[in-house]
Amino acid sequence: MSLEKFFEPKSVAIIGTSRQPGKVGHEILKNIIDGGYKGKIFGVNPKTEEVEGIKCYKSLTEIGEVPDLAVIVIPAKFVISTLEECGKLGTKAVIVITAGFKEIGKAGAELEKELAKIARRYGIRVIGPNCLGIVAPGSKLNASFGGDLPDSGGIGYISQSGALLASILDMANTNHIGFSKLVSIGNKADVDELDVIESLDEDPETKVIAGYLESIGNGDAFVRAAERITHHKPIVLIKAGGTAAGAKAASSHTGSLAGGETAYEAVFARSGIIRCNSIKQQFDYAQAFACSPMPNGARVAVITNAGGPGIMTADAIERQGLTFAKPSKETIAKLAEQLPAAANLYNPIDILGDALADRYEFAIDTVLDDENVDAIVVLLTPQAMTQSLETAEALIKIAKKKNSKPIFACFLGAAKVSDALKLLRVNNIPQYDSPENAVDTLRVMNNYVRWKNRPKRVVKLFGVNRRKVETIIEKHLRQGIREVGEMEAKEILEAYGFKTPKGSIATTADQAANIAETLGYPVVLKIWSPDIIHKSDVGGVKVGLKSAAEVKDAFDLMMYRIPKKIPNAHILGVLVQEMCKGGKEVILGMNRDPQFGPLMMFGMGGTMVEVLKDVSFYLAPLTTDEARQMLKNTRTYRMLEGVRGEEGVDIDAIAEGLQRLSQLVTEFPQIKEMDINPYVVGRAGITPIAVDARMSVEEGSK
Amino acid sequence: MSLEKFFEPKSVAIIGTSRQPGKVGHEILKNIIDGGYKGKIFGVNPKTEEVEGIKCYKSLTEIGEVPDLAVIVIPAKFVISTLEECGKLGTKAVIVITAGFKEIGKAGAELEKELAKIARRYGIRVIGPNCLGIVAPGSKLNASFGGDLPDSGGIGYISQSGALLASILDMANTNHIGFSKLVSIGNKADVDELDVIESLDEDPETKVIAGYLESIGNGDAFVRAAERITHHKPIVLIKAGGTAAGAKAASSHTGSLAGGETAYEAVFARSGIIRCNSIKQQFDYAQAFACSPMPNGARVAVITNAGGPGIMTADAIERQGLTFAKPSKETIAKLAEQLPAAANLYNPIDILGDALADRYEFAIDTVLDDENVDAIVVLLTPQAMTQSLETAEALIKIAKKKNSKPIFACFLGAAKVSDALKLLRVNNIPQYDSPENAVDTLRVMNNYVRWKNRPKRVVKLFGVNRRKVETIIEKHLRQGIREVGEMEAKEILEAYGFKTPKGSIATTADQAANIAETLGYPVVLKIWSPDIIHKSDVGGVKVGLKSAAEVKDAFDLMMYRIPKKIPNAHILGVLVQEMCKGGKEVILGMNRDPQFGPLMMFGMGGTMVEVLKDVSFYLAPLTTDEARQMLKNTRTYRMLEGVRGEEGVDIDAIAEGLQRLSQLVTEFPQIKEMDINPYVVGRAGITPIAVDARMSVEEGSK
Repeated sequence: MSLEKFFEPKSVAIIGTSRQPGKVGHEILKNIIDGGYKGKIFGVNPKTEEVEGIKCYKSLTEIGEVPDLAVIVIPAKFVISTLEECGKLGTKAVIVITAGFKEIGKAGAELEKELAKIARRYGIRVIGPNCLGIVAPGSKLNASFGGDLPDSGGIGYISQSGALLASILDMANTNHIGFSKLVSIGNKADVDELDVIESLDEDPETKVIAGYLESIGNGDAFVRAAERITHHKPIVLIKAGGTAAGAKAASSHTGSLAGGETAYEAVFARSGIIRCNSIKQQFDYAQAFACSPMPNGARVAVITNAGGPGIMTADAIERQGLTFAKPSKETIAKLAEQLPAAANLYNPIDILGDALADRYEFAIDTVLDDENVDAIVVLLTPQAMTQSLETAEALIKIAKKKNSKPIFACFLGAAKVSDALKLLRVNNIPQYDSPENAVDTLRVMNNYVRWKNRPKRVVKLFGVNRRKVETIIEKHLRQGIREVGEMEAKEILEAYGFKTPKGSIATTADQAANIAETLGYPVVLKIWSPDIIHKSDVGGVKVGLKSAAEVKDAFDLMMYRIPKKIPNAHILGVLVQEMCKGGKEVILGMNRDPQFGPLMMFGMGGTMVEVLKDVSFYLAPLTTDEARQMLKNTRTYRMLEGVRGEEGVDIDAIAEGLQRLSQLVTEFPQIKEMDINPYVVGRAGITPIAVDARMSVEEGSK
Repeated sequence: MSLEKFFEPKSVAIIGTSRQPGKVGHEILKNIIDGGYKGKIFGVNPKTEEVEGIKCYKSLTEIGEVPDLAVIVIPAKFVISTLEECGKLGTKAVIVITAGFKEIGKAGAELEKELAKIARRYGIRVIGPNCLGIVAPGSKLNASFGGDLPDSGGIGYISQSGALLASILDMANTNHIGFSKLVSIGNKADVDELDVIESLDEDPETKVIAGYLESIGNGDAFVRAAERITHHKPIVLIKAGGTAAGAKAASSHTGSLAGGETAYEAVFARSGIIRCNSIKQQFDYAQAFACSPMPNGARVAVITNAGGPGIMTADAIERQGLTFAKPSKETIAKLAEQLPAAANLYNPIDILGDALADRYEFAIDTVLDDENVDAIVVLLTPQAMTQSLETAEALIKIAKKKNSKPIFACFLGAAKVSDALKLLRVNNIPQYDSPENAVDTLRVMNNYVRWKNRPKRVVKLFGVNRRKVETIIEKHLRQGIREVGEMEAKEILEAYGFKTPKGSIATTADQAANIAETLGYPVVLKIWSPDIIHKSDVGGVKVGLKSAAEVKDAFDLMMYRIPKKIPNAHILGVLVQEMCKGGKEVILGMNRDPQFGPLMMFGMGGTMVEVLKDVSFYLAPLTTDEARQMLKNTRTYRMLEGVRGEEGVDIDAIAEGLQRLSQLVTEFPQIKEMDINPYVVGRAGITPIAVDARMSVEEGSK
């Protein structure tokens, strides 16, 4: 484990140990002692001999041996020299609790850079500055001022908010939630979220990685690592705050639709990270992943001592898209033998208000063996005769004996069930305060199992003319032109295997008519100017021209009217183009996120894309499955398949278009954003046509 | 208050008092005593002299006076005679706890009918049978076996699940949630949800009506009463279980889309009931309505001692569609004077991790006075110096002093904040275990305030030819024909002011051509048979016929081909109809819900309605506003307004169409379901046309 010196140090020095209770330098020492840490503890404070029974040294060097871990709690201005002292001595793991760095502005940011430089020079790993510390229950190490040492457990937690970690510790300690490690990463001067997540991945104690993040640093590497990790260990994250990439500045459709949360949604989808909307939800999920076996399917059985909550659970199963299990004949017969006549043997299995623990035990045990059941939700309401504690014991006994399927407890109440809940918790039975949350968690577990079992990603590579694209893009960058004109954008697309409509540029009306004659009618005329992006808005597009006369009229009208509307536009001529008939219009696009790279978009064409915002996003490069899934993720996907006798369009051809575009933008990081709009697709076998394209390039895009 | 004998009885008799702890007849007596009930208590049990210090009589009559309230706990077979004894004696309020009625099958249902009959005969109001009893903290009356008497408070609760009420009581008693009344309504033999809700409406102690229902009996009356009540008192309900009205049997579009939860959604929308998805959510809402002043707007300020939770709250405000408040310059200046330099004065107002109670008090007090702020969420994380209890005290002090705007507390933690939470609760400050739930509650309160302030409902009545519709419908019912043919359906629509396409029925090809000549080309031909509902599916529709020859060909082809496809169809001829050009197609419809009556539907036409299910529902009769809102509730509403230079259609004309249809189905309860599909609408000023209509009638529809 790459951060093991932090989590399993043989000795710890607290630099800035304080005699004064309430001071951080005192609280951390006390937390380390109270937690029961078994390694050596050194205090460092030139003005004190001893604190809480721990000897204090004048300086780090005076200790006479090299502590594995140093915790720095001294004022910011002394941190740099102390870190250097650590470096010289050979301590390789340092937690800087001290605040007063990047978060206070420019001077602090300078100080933080200096800190990072020294860390690199000496090969020290630094957590912080401006953090709460770390907690490693397995080593009984509580090097934090967040709260008491929690129980050991399977949840590894990383937080970019120290205060939130304090809340979580308080909740966890009250409710007996166990952790493998907790890390407050503070300003992330050196160790960042990726380091911690990779370290938790290697940690056998950690069954699920949970975290609260406000920003993600190295986007690409984060996505790659997360994708690898989620294949064997679930990650449940809260991502707070919107993305920096504002939608306003974007000029393309894709850009304007890709703003806000979209990039993060795509990152989470691509890397299999489970996103949580609240701390509550996160712990609902995390406790299940940490403690429960995974479900093999979505068929949920409900065992209850009350009808109402049973119905509510059934409602939740339906709403969440899970399956209401149908117990087998054998199960029903077996239940019928022992349950009272008034019991409901079908799902929800109502064992009645007078059910004692033995009846629960029998029912759970019986239903658990049913092959038609993938998970069980056990509901209990505290009625007059209910034995909540004994029922919890029975549940624990069965879960320990079989441990084959998720059994979630939902004991509805407070004081009357609190002992039972505590017992369930310390025995690692997931428990929920409402049926809705239990079912929601089962849904998430099911999705995760599907994600784990997905086929290996294979990104198809098409034979393309890369050189040609390089030439065009380089020319643009050299000349400082950001928008690639329609003709050259289409050349680029053709180089990557797209079919575009035939056409040429005319500079006179006669020439336009000649081109039209060669193409065959009807044709489209489009004004041709690097300065005009929204051609239709200025009357620069005329469709369905059916004769030489119509073409000439349209040409002359554009040449007369458009310069009046946009006097400074440099008009190069008019594009005369064949018209695509039939087929459906869709839009393919890409917007390059500053952190995560090319974000592919698929959307339904026409006015629909604007009214419904019926688009889907995914990170490039795309596999065939991912491209297809992008289509399926739109609400009007069925329109593509064909509705009411209408013929469907070539779904695979659209998916291939997305993959070709994905290859293009992956191979050319200079392409900042682009749209193919419309991309006209016909029935299977007919090659789609990229009718119009918009593209912008930029030096040094990611 | 209509049920006051239940809630404020001067004396209570428990018929079936038991000496044996654990027995219901003992628990209820004990709960009444322990609750501190001040009225007279009589035990009734022929075999016992005294239980828990209360004298037991051999029979009700032997008591020698008339108890206000009787609680019956004896076996089902003795209940009828005992109820009769109550009747003869003059007791007017009876709770039947005993189970073994409707819920056990036919024999029980018979017994329950008998029970209801006797209740009616003697003018007794009966709650139950098969219920948990009632609780009225204001009278210190706990006539239930659900748990201990809870605190007094503003929440009136009604539950169709007894066990759930037991869970709620346990939660409430642990968390100090106060109630005005709790009623377990059991099988609803006499007193039903409507009686209780109306009684809670009249009850000044009840500030909010909450409940769990599985079924609603008298649909019409329920909607009317709820609409009246929600105008001054919020109702927050859980409705569990799907509707009985299955979608499968329905033959129209509207019918197939109206299934499942749709009717209940419409009922809740129409009557202003706030629907909750879980008990947790319900109490989040209820505590706010019971304790907090209402917000005057959606601008939320956040005061926090930690950045992370502040960002999460900001995220929630954006997601829930509320407004992030912008504090005024004066507020910011005032905050700047006293807060530390590192504090964030803008929203979220971060008063830093070392904030003591006095800093919270100052910030809350200052922000509360800001006219730009409608509500405040106060976040607290338990950090080293945090004074959670003192902060709670400060918050309570300000809330009591000003009581002008909602102040929601969100103290994130457990043991370290539990005393503070308790103090907040008993002092009626709403508190939430996550920022997301606090913000969700503010959203719901805001919606409620808008609902309260909505203009009075006025349903417009159009001049129509009612007689004509009556004649057609009566003819159908007399002849036992359920499906009204297209021609007569259109006659009905015309009688209610709809314009339909011109056309006549032809029985020969020549006649068809003649009709077409008169109408003018192009025309549409439609096969005309009561036995063919889906005309297009059998080739029975031919559009765009442009000449007499084309009309004749089409006529003959239909006459030749269709009888081969449907040999038994009785073909009356072919409808020759003018063709509607231009305009947008929408669908207007109605499906009569067995409980709640006519459910109006509006949907976008074409294949869209099927793929997107882009439809909206509302209960008839419709006001102009409601009809317009139905249009706005579809996702593609903007398509009607006109997108990208495309001209919009006459929105008001569609709304009028819905209102006319609403009047028709309200005046003719025999109409079971109907569609106008397509309803073709053009730009403002052009009368829309009901191109095709489908209608079915039935005797005795509601």
